[in-house]
Amino acid sequence: MALISYETVCSTAIGALTRAGVPLAHARLQGDLLIEAELADRPSHGLLRLPRIIERIENGVINPETDGARTWRRSFLDVDGRMGLGPVVADSALAEMSEHARVNGIAIAAIRNNNHLGMLGWYARRIASRGQVLIALTTSEALVHPWSGRTAMLGTNPIAIGVPTAGAPFVVDMATSLVSMGQIHDYAIQGRPIPEGWALDERGNPTTDAGAAKAGSIAPFGGAKGYALGLAFEVLVTFLADCAVGRDVVGTLDSDQPCNKGDVMIVVDPGERPQIARRITDYLDAVRASGDAAHPVSVPGDRAGEARRQRLVEGIELPDRLWQQLEEMAAGGNNGTEKVRKAARRH
Amino acid sequence: MALISYETVCSTAIGALTRAGVPLAHARLQGDLLIEAELADRPSHGLLRLPRIIERIENGVINPETDGARTWRRSFLDVDGRMGLGPVVADSALAEMSEHARVNGIAIAAIRNNNHLGMLGWYARRIASRGQVLIALTTSEALVHPWSGRTAMLGTNPIAIGVPTAGAPFVVDMATSLVSMGQIHDYAIQGRPIPEGWALDERGNPTTDAGAAKAGSIAPFGGAKGYALGLAFEVLVTFLADCAVGRDVVGTLDSDQPCNKGDVMIVVDPGERPQIARRITDYLDAVRASGDAAHPVSVPGDRAGEARRQRLVEGIELPDRLWQQLEEMAAGGNNGTEKVRKAARRH
Repeated sequence: MALISYETVCSTAIGALTRAGVPLAHARLQGDLLIEAELADRPSHGLLRLPRIIERIENGVINPETDGARTWRRSFLDVDGRMGLGPVVADSALAEMSEHARVNGIAIAAIRNNNHLGMLGWYARRIASRGQVLIALTTSEALVHPWSGRTAMLGTNPIAIGVPTAGAPFVVDMATSLVSMGQIHDYAIQGRPIPEGWALDERGNPTTDAGAAKAGSIAPFGGAKGYALGLAFEVLVTFLADCAVGRDVVGTLDSDQPCNKGDVMIVVDPGERPQIARRITDYLDAVRASGDAAHPVSVPGDRAGEARRQRLVEGIELPDRLWQQLEEMAAGGNNGTEKVRKAARRH
Repeated sequence: MALISYETVCSTAIGALTRAGVPLAHARLQGDLLIEAELADRPSHGLLRLPRIIERIENGVINPETDGARTWRRSFLDVDGRMGLGPVVADSALAEMSEHARVNGIAIAAIRNNNHLGMLGWYARRIASRGQVLIALTTSEALVHPWSGRTAMLGTNPIAIGVPTAGAPFVVDMATSLVSMGQIHDYAIQGRPIPEGWALDERGNPTTDAGAAKAGSIAPFGGAKGYALGLAFEVLVTFLADCAVGRDVVGTLDSDQPCNKGDVMIVVDPGERPQIARRITDYLDAVRASGDAAHPVSVPGDRAGEARRQRLVEGIELPDRLWQQLEEMAAGGNNGTEKVRKAARRH
C-alpha cells in the first residue's frame, strides 16, 4: 500500500480527470466525491472507480461537459442527465433544489440517463450542513436476489438520509444489500472465502467462493424486510425517474454502455430550528452513552468521521497498483488523450 | 376464536367508537383502519387496539372530534394533531396533500400531538390507488435497542411506501424493529419462549422469556444497517415534526398520557404515467417468476392480499375475549358514556 497525502491525492485525481477532458469545476466535484469516500473508509466508492470513469469518458458513455437538462414542474424537478458525470448532474440539481426548498419547504428531483452518483452520504452531508434534510435513493444493475430467491433481480439500491444537528450533520448511507459487490471483489482478489449467507453462485446455490459469487447474486440485508425495502426503492425510483428496472439496468459496472438507472432526491427545508437541532444532538449523545465498554454503541458516521480526521493528517492508504495507475493517468501516460478527443466528437 | 363476518365486525367496531363519543365519519375511518389490519393478517395493528383507543378517549388524551390544525407553508404542511384520532388527523392532512401534490408535484406533512396512526400501509394503499406515491414515517415509544446496545433508545419507527402499478398498488409497510412488541405480548400470553436474538431483558441481557422481554428491549432488524435506518427515521421525524425523541416519547402504548411522537408523510405526483406503471407490474411479475417451487419468491403485499380476499368471504377470526369486549362496548356495556362526557368537557 502507498500512503499519500490528501493534497497529493487531490491534485492527482483532478489531474487525471482534466487530462481526460473533464472541465476543472467538474473534475473537482467528481474528485472530491471519490476522495471523501477514501477519507470515510469506503474504498468501494473511492478512487478505484476513477479508471472506469475515465474509460467511460473515452468510450463516449460519459459526457464530462454536461450538467444535464433540468425542467421544473412546480416543486418537481425532472432531470435528463444526458450521460453527464453522476455528481455533476446531481450537484447542479441539488443547487436548484436547495433554493427551491428554502422558499417552498420541499423539492424533489427525479433523474434519468445519469452516471453513477457515488457515495450518497456525500450529498446528504452537504445538504444537511445547509440546515436542510436530504433523502436520496438510487438504483443499480441487478445484483441482489429476492428473499428466498436465487437470481439477481434488484439493484443494491442504497438510501442516504441527512439531517442537521447542532453539531456535524447526521448522515446515514447504506445499501439494501447485505454487502457490496466491491467487498466480494476484494475477497476474490485476496483469494479468501466469503462468509456463508453473503451470496449465491450463478446457478443460485449458496457459495463461499468469492469468484463464484461475482457471477451470482448477493443477499439482501435483513432478510425479508431488507428485500422488501430494496424492492420498494427499485419501484419508487423507476416510477418517478422513468428509468430502466431490474435486469434491464446497465452502465453502473461496465465501461461501455450508457447508464440507464435512476436517482431520486428529496430536499426538505422546515426553516430555522436551532432548538430541535440541539435536541437531536443531545439525543445522539444519549444513544452513544447508552453503551458501555463491553457493549459500545456508536452512531452512524462516528467511525467515518474519525477515519476522516486521521487521514487528513496522516494521508490516505491506496493499493500500489491503483496509485501508480492514477499517477500515469494524471501524467497522460494512459495514452487516453486521443481517445477522449474521439469521444468528444460523438457528443 | 370467534369467526365473525366482515359486515358484523364493521358495525360492531363503528358502534363501539360512536358510543364512545366519536363522530360517525371519524368512527368509520378509525374502524376501517383497524379492520383492514385484521384483513391483512396484521392483528397487532388490528382490533386489539380498539379498547385502548376508547380508554384514551375516556381519559381525555384522545379528542375524537378534531382533525387537527393544518398550516401550509407553500408545499410544507405543518399539522398540530390536537390529540385527535391518528387516522382522522392523518387522513385530513393527506386529502389536502394529495390535491396540493397534483398541482405542485410534491407535498410534505409533519405532524405532532397526534395519536397512533395504525398500519401505515393503509395510507400508502389509498394514495397509490390515486396514482400518487406515498412515503410515510412515524415514531413510537423507545422499544428498540441500538445495535450492540442493551437499552431501548429508539421507537419501532416503521416506514411505508406506496407506488402505483398497472394493477393493485405496490405497498411496503415495515417496522425497523426485528419483531413487534405485539408479537412478544402474543408469546407471553401463550406462555411460549421467544426465539433467541429477538430481545433483551430489563437489565440488557439476552432473553427467551417473553415476559422478561416485555420489560426490556427489542432488537433492530438487519443488525447495524437496520439500527442505522431506524435511528435516521427517529432523527428525521423529530427534526421535521418538532416532536419528542427517544425515551421522552409517551402515549403510543399507555392509556393516559398525551401522545407526543411525530409523523411525516410525503406525497409525490409525477403526473399520469401508464407506461411506467405497466413496466413496474411486469417487473414485479418477473420477480415472482424468478422463484420456483423449492424457492418461492413473493412480493410484499401478496400474502396480505390473499388473506384479505379470503377473510372478506369467510369472515375474520378474533380471540373470543376481544370479540366479547367489542360487543359490550358497542352495546354500551362498558359503562363508558359518563366517562366520555367528562372527557369531552376537558377538550
